[in-house]
Amino acid sequence: MTPEQILAGIVQGTSAAQRRAMAKAITLLESTRADHRTQADALLTALLPHTGRSLRLGISGVPGVGKSTFIEALGLHLIAQGHRVAVLAIDPSSSVSGGSILGDKTRMEHLSVHESAYIRPSPSSGTLGGVAEKTREAMLVCEAAGYDVVIVETVGVGQSETAVHGMTDMFCLLQLPNAGDDLQAIKKGVMELADLVVINKADIDPDAATRARAQITSSLRLLGMHGNPEHGSAFWQPQVIQMSALHGQGVDSFWAAVSQYRDLQTANGRLGVRRQQQARAWMWERIDAGLKQRFREHPKVREALESTGRAVIEGRLPASTAARQLLELFD
Amino acid sequence: MTPEQILAGIVQGTSAAQRRAMAKAITLLESTRADHRTQADALLTALLPHTGRSLRLGISGVPGVGKSTFIEALGLHLIAQGHRVAVLAIDPSSSVSGGSILGDKTRMEHLSVHESAYIRPSPSSGTLGGVAEKTREAMLVCEAAGYDVVIVETVGVGQSETAVHGMTDMFCLLQLPNAGDDLQAIKKGVMELADLVVINKADIDPDAATRARAQITSSLRLLGMHGNPEHGSAFWQPQVIQMSALHGQGVDSFWAAVSQYRDLQTANGRLGVRRQQQARAWMWERIDAGLKQRFREHPKVREALESTGRAVIEGRLPASTAARQLLELFD
Repeated sequence: MTPEQILAGIVQGTSAAQRRAMAKAITLLESTRADHRTQADALLTALLPHTGRSLRLGISGVPGVGKSTFIEALGLHLIAQGHRVAVLAIDPSSSVSGGSILGDKTRMEHLSVHESAYIRPSPSSGTLGGVAEKTREAMLVCEAAGYDVVIVETVGVGQSETAVHGMTDMFCLLQLPNAGDDLQAIKKGVMELADLVVINKADIDPDAATRARAQITSSLRLLGMHGNPEHGSAFWQPQVIQMSALHGQGVDSFWAAVSQYRDLQTANGRLGVRRQQQARAWMWERIDAGLKQRFREHPKVREALESTGRAVIEGRLPASTAARQLLELFD
Repeated sequence: MTPEQILAGIVQGTSAAQRRAMAKAITLLESTRADHRTQADALLTALLPHTGRSLRLGISGVPGVGKSTFIEALGLHLIAQGHRVAVLAIDPSSSVSGGSILGDKTRMEHLSVHESAYIRPSPSSGTLGGVAEKTREAMLVCEAAGYDVVIVETVGVGQSETAVHGMTDMFCLLQLPNAGDDLQAIKKGVMELADLVVINKADIDPDAATRARAQITSSLRLLGMHGNPEHGSAFWQPQVIQMSALHGQGVDSFWAAVSQYRDLQTANGRLGVRRQQQARAWMWERIDAGLKQRFREHPKVREALESTGRAVIEGRLPASTAARQLLELFD
C-alpha cells in the first residue's frame, strides 16, 4: 500500500478497507525505519485536515479501579447513540515489560467486536515520550477515519497522566471510594489535572462513596482557588460523579457532564486554545527528547560522559562545571 | 585578586580577608563574561576538596509565613552554640523583577551584623536554573570558608522548592496554621519533599495549630505509604513541629529534630547517596538547559522556528513532524 492508498483508505474507504488502511498507517507510524518515518510524516501531514473533529477524552485510574469495565460501558452507550468510538492507551510499564496490558481487546469483550469501535493497545516499546507520540499520532489516524469519540486511557502510576492530559480535551480521573485515594491523586498532581472525577464501584460501599465525593469536592474547591486556570469558577468547577460501571449506573450522567463541558469549551473558545497549547508543548517535548538523545549519542560526549559523571559523583568536579565541559564537546 | 589569592583568602584568610575573598568569588561566579566563567570553574574545582562539611538546610514557605523571623531566631540560636551560619536564597521572582527580596539583610537585623553569619540575597537575574546554579556555587564558597550550617531559603511559589530540595540535605516546609494550606503544599508536590514541617505562628491560634498538626501528620503518613523512598517508616517519618519564631518558642525542638535526622542520614549512609544523586541530577539539569539554549540560538533553527511553530498551532503540521524538521536543521 502506498501512502496515498493508505490516506484514501482511511478517509473514504469502506469499513473493511478503512480498518486495513488504519492498521497499515499505525504500523508505519510505529516503525523505527528512517524511510518509514519519512513516509509517516508525509501521511500525518496529509491526514491533518481531516482531524480534530472528535471529542478527545482522557481516562486515568489506578489498577483495579475498573477502567476496562467503565470504558466498555461508556463505549457501548455512545455507540447506541450513533457515535463511533476509538480506544487508545498509554501504558508506562510497556517500555519495561515490552508487553502492553492496556487497551487489550480481551478486557472489553463486547466493545472490541463492535464494528463502530476501534481498540488499539499501548505501543509496547520505547520511552514514555515515544509511546505517547505514537498514541498521539494514532489518534489523528482515528479522527481522519471518522471516529468522533477518542478515548485515551492510562494507568494511574507514573508520569503518563500528564501525557494523556496533554493530548485530550477533557481529563477524567477514576477513583475508588477509599480514604487516602484522593490524597494520592492530589500529591501526584493528577487531581489538579482532572476536569471530572468519577468515583467508581460506588455500589460496593455507598456511604464511603458519599464521603469520598464530599471530600474530593471540597479538595477540588480548595485546589481551584490557586489552581488550574481553566477551572476558575467563572468557567468550570470540576464535577464529581458516582458510578457503578459494572451495573451500568451513572454512565448517562457521566456523559451529560462531558457534553456540558464540551459545550462550554466550544462556546468560549477554550477548546481551540487548549489544543494549540498542547500542540506547542508537544513540539517542545519532542525537541527536548531529540536533543538529549543526540547529546548522549555524540561520539565525544559518549566517550567523556562516564568519567565526567564519576568525577561529579565522587566530588572531584562541580556539577555545573561538568555540564559546561560536556556541552563544549558537543558541537 | 587572582583566583589563587581568592582561594587562599577563602580557605585560610583572617575574618576580614575571608569576607573580601568570598565577595570576589561570588562576583566572579555571577559574572556573565566568558573569561570570568573559566576562572570561576577553575576556582570552584579548587574549592571542592574544602566543601561538603556543612549541614545544608532548605527552608520554604509562602510569603507571610515568617521565614525571616524564623531564620533570624534559628541563626542566632546556632551561633550561640558555636556554629557559623550562612544564609543564601533563591527567589523565583527575581528574574522578573530584577530585584531580590529574599535574603535581604534588613530583614534579619541581628543576624546580618553578626560576625559568625554570612547573608547573601538571591542572584537577581536569569532563569530559575541559572539563579539556582549561582546559589549552589555560592554554597560551596561558604562551605570552603568554614560555615558549618548553610541555610538556603526560597519562597513557596513556583518551582524553586524543587531546586532548593535538590541542593540541601534536609528540606523544611514552613506552614501557617490555616485550613487548606497543607492541601496547597500537597498539590504542589512540596509536602512530599519535606523532611520536616514547621507550623509557625502557632501562638496566634493554638487550637488551629493543633488541628493543622494532626492533619499534616496524617497526610504525611498517607503520602509516605507510596511516597518518598527516603521516608520509609524504616528510616524517617517526617516530623511536624509547632513554633512561634517571633517569641523564640520551638527553635530548640526544631534543631533537635534536624540533628536527629542528620545523625540518621550519616549513620545509614543516605547523606552521601542524596548528595551524589543531587550532583548527578544537577549536571543533567544544566546540560538540558544548555542544549535548549543552543538550539534556540542556532541560526537555521531561529530562522525556521516561528513559521514552523505557527504551522503547528494552526494545525497545518503535526507537532512531532515539526520537532523532527527543526531537529534536522540543528547540526
